[in-house]
Amino acid sequence: MTTFWTETVNRLTPYVPGEQRTGTDITKLNTNENPYPPAPSVLQAIRAVTGEQLRRYPDPESVELRTVLAEYHGLAIDEVFVGNGSDEILALAFLAYFTNGRMLQFPDISYNFYAVYCALYGIEARTVSLDEDYQLDLARFEANTGGIIFPNPNAPTACAIPADAIAQLLERHTRQILLVDEAYAGFGADSVVALTRQYPNLLVSHTFSKNRSLAGMRLGVAFGHPSLIEGLQRVKNSFNSYPVDVLAQAAGIASMSDDTYYRNTVAAIIRTREQAVADLRLRGFQVLPTSANFLFARVPDGQAGKLFKRLNEAGVLVRYWDKPRLDHWLRITIGTPDDMGRLMNCLDA
Amino acid sequence: MTTFWTETVNRLTPYVPGEQRTGTDITKLNTNENPYPPAPSVLQAIRAVTGEQLRRYPDPESVELRTVLAEYHGLAIDEVFVGNGSDEILALAFLAYFTNGRMLQFPDISYNFYAVYCALYGIEARTVSLDEDYQLDLARFEANTGGIIFPNPNAPTACAIPADAIAQLLERHTRQILLVDEAYAGFGADSVVALTRQYPNLLVSHTFSKNRSLAGMRLGVAFGHPSLIEGLQRVKNSFNSYPVDVLAQAAGIASMSDDTYYRNTVAAIIRTREQAVADLRLRGFQVLPTSANFLFARVPDGQAGKLFKRLNEAGVLVRYWDKPRLDHWLRITIGTPDDMGRLMNCLDA
Repeated sequence: MTTFWTETVNRLTPYVPGEQRTGTDITKLNTNENPYPPAPSVLQAIRAVTGEQLRRYPDPESVELRTVLAEYHGLAIDEVFVGNGSDEILALAFLAYFTNGRMLQFPDISYNFYAVYCALYGIEARTVSLDEDYQLDLARFEANTGGIIFPNPNAPTACAIPADAIAQLLERHTRQILLVDEAYAGFGADSVVALTRQYPNLLVSHTFSKNRSLAGMRLGVAFGHPSLIEGLQRVKNSFNSYPVDVLAQAAGIASMSDDTYYRNTVAAIIRTREQAVADLRLRGFQVLPTSANFLFARVPDGQAGKLFKRLNEAGVLVRYWDKPRLDHWLRITIGTPDDMGRLMNCLDA
Repeated sequence: MTTFWTETVNRLTPYVPGEQRTGTDITKLNTNENPYPPAPSVLQAIRAVTGEQLRRYPDPESVELRTVLAEYHGLAIDEVFVGNGSDEILALAFLAYFTNGRMLQFPDISYNFYAVYCALYGIEARTVSLDEDYQLDLARFEANTGGIIFPNPNAPTACAIPADAIAQLLERHTRQILLVDEAYAGFGADSVVALTRQYPNLLVSHTFSKNRSLAGMRLGVAFGHPSLIEGLQRVKNSFNSYPVDVLAQAAGIASMSDDTYYRNTVAAIIRTREQAVADLRLRGFQVLPTSANFLFARVPDGQAGKLFKRLNEAGVLVRYWDKPRLDHWLRITIGTPDDMGRLMNCLDA
């Protein structure tokens, strides 16, 4: 019964995240989670939160967390915004900046949520095709006709774009927003956070879910010119005053003070990734160059759907899309060396 | 510089929550926080969450938490929705149900966020005046011309409406949504959660911030017909897949299993409230009948702004609005007996 649904609800095709199956014999390589837990200091910070803190509202402006993030990136606090995961930040940013009656451009193969936000807010989407090698050519974006968003590295391809290419785009795209979604930039891609000082139309989003191992916590960050951040604050304070709870603020602050730990876990993931790329190529897979904590691999016989299903039955979860240009490929999260060993064993079996 | 702001951002007047000042000598009676901490089991549940859980995404559908909530209220899981605080739920519900091109009715003196959501989404607001005694007369709502929302008890008046009056409204208002915001219903007002079974256009929102002492956590709930809940899910899954993190899910589940603790803290607050009402009346204040964890009191000389400022300087934070019909009044949260004693001492000084 949908008597009371509005047109807004009717027109939606919600985003479908990867399966969150649990179980002892599951190797979960389908949602790009970090195989290593967060730093011990993060757990300590969470466990130090008291009942007295929980009974009170959190700081609605997350001042301490934003200060720590600003210092880390050499910015001022008014250039930093935090939210309930980078998905919430994207949702607020679309509402704040892309509901201007113009079309929004993004790659045709990219994070699927962008098209979902467009449907939610009635934004006209214009997609830009990846080239024959699945690379994003920034020259294909039309400058200034509307906003632009892309992930760097891209998803699900894992391919990164160098900062100077993004700066070139910003030189010609000056009158509308560019949002660079750096959810996976912590695994070796260039970050353009520093460019926000030069380009007042550049917004950059980060997440604690990937290189900082806090997917369970929901914490995201955006960086940009103070006026862009103020616009996000205005929309956030018209939507939900306190999206980041006291535990997430405490965990985020602790996380940023423990960089050595994360440098080590990221280095381990990169080592495992390089080995996995080599192992898959040895088995006849085509693997795109990856700068993320996942890889995108073409199955030797092209029957990715079949392989996806067989792996799933064997307890190895990866991601597959039954869509043109993607349906011969699997997206595989980089787990521990043991996780990847199990995947290779399954492929050999 | 606001070069890149859209009309959406420009037209906003964001909600302003009460001051979150901290300090050892502050008596905080300004944001309707519970003076008692959450049950020890909640802290245990939070501290039992592991790094392994934090590195993975939470269950996007919060199945276990929703099951516990459904059982508690005698409903099915598909009649229960959870979100990042009841403010997020209201924000999603407005987007899902009130962007239908019709006007939305709510009391002229009410939770200020309703008007903010209307501005955010471009919804036409029509306010219904409270009567001369600051009571909400449901007969003043026009049925079926658009959605209706009100808090029960109302804020900042603290006055409640009995369930049978709401049922009468639902008998004539059948073709549009009624959203009853029961943020404060845990302190003695009737809840209409059970009526959602009879009226498929009734949506009811709850929060863990008030009677369950978890303002720092951000956890809200909505109850309604499965089709209304499905609409909320569709919008939520088009906005942010994982708004409720693993810690909030664990805390919520623990909270619902510890009802005796909350019955006791609520009973203590009600006792303190009745004493505070008597003490204020003794001092010449007019106090509206209260069914919430706060009260609304008219200052004897009507100079509420002056008293608000003096209390603030003395470290006693209450809430004041410099607006017609409100500017002689203060909203005062019910704290511990000691908190209220300090307030009375300040008033006597």
